[in-house]
Amino acid sequence: MLIREAAAGDWPRIWPFWHRIVAARETYAWDPDTSEEAARALWTGPGKRVYVAEDDTGAVVASAYVTANYGGPAARVANAGFMVDPDHGGRGIGRALAKHVLAAAKADGYRSMVFNAVVETNPAVGLWTSLGFTVLGTVPDAYEHARHGPVGLHIMYRAL
Amino acid sequence: MLIREAAAGDWPRIWPFWHRIVAARETYAWDPDTSEEAARALWTGPGKRVYVAEDDTGAVVASAYVTANYGGPAARVANAGFMVDPDHGGRGIGRALAKHVLAAAKADGYRSMVFNAVVETNPAVGLWTSLGFTVLGTVPDAYEHARHGPVGLHIMYRAL
Repeated sequence: MLIREAAAGDWPRIWPFWHRIVAARETYAWDPDTSEEAARALWTGPGKRVYVAEDDTGAVVASAYVTANYGGPAARVANAGFMVDPDHGGRGIGRALAKHVLAAAKADGYRSMVFNAVVETNPAVGLWTSLGFTVLGTVPDAYEHARHGPVGLHIMYRAL
Repeated sequence: MLIREAAAGDWPRIWPFWHRIVAARETYAWDPDTSEEAARALWTGPGKRVYVAEDDTGAVVASAYVTANYGGPAARVANAGFMVDPDHGGRGIGRALAKHVLAAAKADGYRSMVFNAVVETNPAVGLWTSLGFTVLGTVPDAYEHARHGPVGLHIMYRAL
């Protein structure tokens, strides 16, 4: 697998699984009907550094972005988002991409990383915990999960 | 005191204290050098409902915005920001504006309100606590305070 920064031509290869994941209403707090144009702005807009993972066939199977979670006096706290194509899940791609992105964010000068809204039923919570993230707190019943109904949103944190 | 929704002509009356507060690097996680145009977008941009408080002379002495803190399946959690002109502090304006905005956010259908980044040394923490907000968690050393150095950012929450 190859993990690299995204190029302009990668977006059409991210969008199919981006849309599938957001439309499922299980992990992301974005509008399930987000248009491709709006999705591109959310994922790759100004101030975001975007990564992709390619499998051995050259297919883009995952993506991540990193950006500052706050501005000004708190700009050294990073935020990131991760998506693995559901057709390629369970193979360690998310973990490999996360390790790459955590190291890159540290190299970029960030001191810590915060996830603002991790759906508490998302299996990725276990991945983040295993990588050293802790749950700082949980916004109760904040997310209307497609299958589970109202569930909490974790704020997760890790020093870099 | 009159609390009302802001009109287009109010921004120039908000900007002087907006700039003073952000430039002080004590309470807001925005760039101290934010331009007036960028500040206007941050405070009054799409999706934000903006309020102002006028004193008996008609001067704008405080402002607040309310917006959705997340999208899609979590869009019923509100976020808000509050600023009181430092020249008019300590007179209960912030509390009156907060009560107004909390009621308005509930009337607009929000179920709860989250503040993502309350500087832990901000005296407003006491105001929020007295109004029923709780600290869900604290991002350690996330904010470089102009006088205190690195301090934490509270995530605060209240049901509506």
